[in-house]
Amino acid sequence: MHDFTYYNPTKIEFGKDKENNIGRYIKENGIENVLLVYGTGSIKKSGLYERIIKSLNENGVGYRELDGIVSNPLLSRVNDGISIAKADKLQAVLGVGGGSVADSAKAIAAGAKYDGDVWDFFIHKAEITEALPVFTVMTLAATASEMNGNSVVMNDATKQKYSIGSVLVNPVLSVVNPALMATVTPEYLAYSAVDIIAHSIEVYFTASTHPHFNSRLVESIVKSVIETTEILLADPDNYEARGEFAWVATQALNGLTPAGTAGGSFPNHMIEHSLSALYNVAHGAGLSIVIPAWMKWYKEQNITQFERFAKEVFGLDSADAGIEALETWFAKIGSPVRLADADIPRDGIDALADNAGELAKVWGMAEQYPKETIAEILKKA
Amino acid sequence: MHDFTYYNPTKIEFGKDKENNIGRYIKENGIENVLLVYGTGSIKKSGLYERIIKSLNENGVGYRELDGIVSNPLLSRVNDGISIAKADKLQAVLGVGGGSVADSAKAIAAGAKYDGDVWDFFIHKAEITEALPVFTVMTLAATASEMNGNSVVMNDATKQKYSIGSVLVNPVLSVVNPALMATVTPEYLAYSAVDIIAHSIEVYFTASTHPHFNSRLVESIVKSVIETTEILLADPDNYEARGEFAWVATQALNGLTPAGTAGGSFPNHMIEHSLSALYNVAHGAGLSIVIPAWMKWYKEQNITQFERFAKEVFGLDSADAGIEALETWFAKIGSPVRLADADIPRDGIDALADNAGELAKVWGMAEQYPKETIAEILKKA
Repeated sequence: MHDFTYYNPTKIEFGKDKENNIGRYIKENGIENVLLVYGTGSIKKSGLYERIIKSLNENGVGYRELDGIVSNPLLSRVNDGISIAKADKLQAVLGVGGGSVADSAKAIAAGAKYDGDVWDFFIHKAEITEALPVFTVMTLAATASEMNGNSVVMNDATKQKYSIGSVLVNPVLSVVNPALMATVTPEYLAYSAVDIIAHSIEVYFTASTHPHFNSRLVESIVKSVIETTEILLADPDNYEARGEFAWVATQALNGLTPAGTAGGSFPNHMIEHSLSALYNVAHGAGLSIVIPAWMKWYKEQNITQFERFAKEVFGLDSADAGIEALETWFAKIGSPVRLADADIPRDGIDALADNAGELAKVWGMAEQYPKETIAEILKKA
Repeated sequence: MHDFTYYNPTKIEFGKDKENNIGRYIKENGIENVLLVYGTGSIKKSGLYERIIKSLNENGVGYRELDGIVSNPLLSRVNDGISIAKADKLQAVLGVGGGSVADSAKAIAAGAKYDGDVWDFFIHKAEITEALPVFTVMTLAATASEMNGNSVVMNDATKQKYSIGSVLVNPVLSVVNPALMATVTPEYLAYSAVDIIAHSIEVYFTASTHPHFNSRLVESIVKSVIETTEILLADPDNYEARGEFAWVATQALNGLTPAGTAGGSFPNHMIEHSLSALYNVAHGAGLSIVIPAWMKWYKEQNITQFERFAKEVFGLDSADAGIEALETWFAKIGSPVRLADADIPRDGIDALADNAGELAKVWGMAEQYPKETIAEILKKA
């Protein structure tokens, strides 16, 4: 067991109708007004927007609004939010939506308490020392943004999709109501499933030490994702499966799975960010392209763990069989597994490798992943 | 998935030598003095006491002391601590020891901010609304007291072993250094293993709904406990196994395993508390006597889950085989599995059933567990 600090102070309010209490939850934290951040309108169509506003009003919580957050959320919109929060001296940020909305809310929360450019945090030029409290009401399960301090934002000027991580932007409270997630398309459900699996297996395969409990936890997450995704593709209104899917998504990236491991990293996320940045591919779709290719390239570096994965998750007896089973499953649920599936031409690989290579430097992974290596991996896709 | 609130704000500092930072951790929370609570002297023999004092002194954290906490910790000693904390207006409580010390620290923390009798909280006559911040340095892994709001205390006047649960007494920060746990006797290691398994399987068997992820998580915990206990009995200095054992202990009762289940309860703990109260049996030793008996009595009420347990944990194909395997394992590691093993006479069963029956009322379980039923279960032991 490697030394670690585990600290996750986010309160999760999980269950039906809990979003109707959001005004009360915010008020109970002594907060009088918020910046309400959301996407491109689906929460208005669904009626969720109206219920959130009602709850805020009933509890005397004032609000300003920032809409138009898109997937692969943009720095420019984050900066718009920071301007409003600063100008109106807002006390908190409330994100209502999926991972992109939550991530934008966090970046706004950090930027609102910083005199410089919020992008400084993303390029490790400055460290977050203060942030507005963040609240979220989630409409999509995938990123675990509801229970971590991570935020991934795309700099639309430089085409860099970078991230921050600080417990100061962990949501104070997140509402996870699986019923709000029932309208996700089969396509995005599949992408979400891929994302959750990616979050749990990156460290599982790359860490140099693996307590068995951590491996078991990851295998439990992956098995539950596979099981519930299949149920939900056939029966989208299955609340039990929707709920388990949502909770497993939260567990996959809230700090628990890597606790006690050493040396883990997120190479698939690093490489995928270039696909999202240059081709605006959905994050999960990009991951299902990168992961099988990376696994084939990497497997010999940790063959025992790849064999274990094959056996425990799929009941198969070789590393290769496990990789193939995962790739086949990605394809079966409708997520792309080749660059061509996402209309990315082979001659785009160099530019992708350049982009990911820059991120590798920021993440301190440039030695293991020079751009030639990234290109080699992408060629397998 | 049943609705739930998950909130566990305890920070865990896990790893070697972290106890030497305890003064700094406390200071960083703006605290200037503490009540230092510990047991009957083992921390003085081991040198831990000296290092804690050194760290407090170096960081200018003042302290008063309360020693003499015994296993099955006593209300009288808790009241002593409350008196000191109130008289000297101490700002926090620091427990250094095992579960009994941590539990005492929590009860003192709650009592120090309450004008009435702290026992009011245990008999549900009053609710905790305020408490001093609690810090712990753990020397034993079993109760997960380092990461929950539970405290079990024995009223030495009335022979009632009752509990409280409030996030207000969750430790602000706990140090879990597996190296401090290496001197536990094989006997107490076995009792601890039983306790951890009990924490995870109580809800696993009694809940009326079981998301598969929760079941997988519990099975992961049980498998890791079995595996690491066997390693440690043969090789007490195995730090990896000691660390995994400690972390799994924490996970077994920090609120994670029951999240999303419905209707779970702790009948084995309820019954065991009477063994501890009347015969001063170690908690884990009492549990290994009660659990197999309870399982035999209860199995038909949730046969699917008992079959699942047998298969997933032991690779066996019937509920009975799983129960037998667990009982055999308890005996193998040296924990008693019959009342007679702990020198409890058969004619003591009535008094035990009376005592547990009173607790069943406090816990709202009297309908399912009248004292006749408790006696019937104990007779199987």
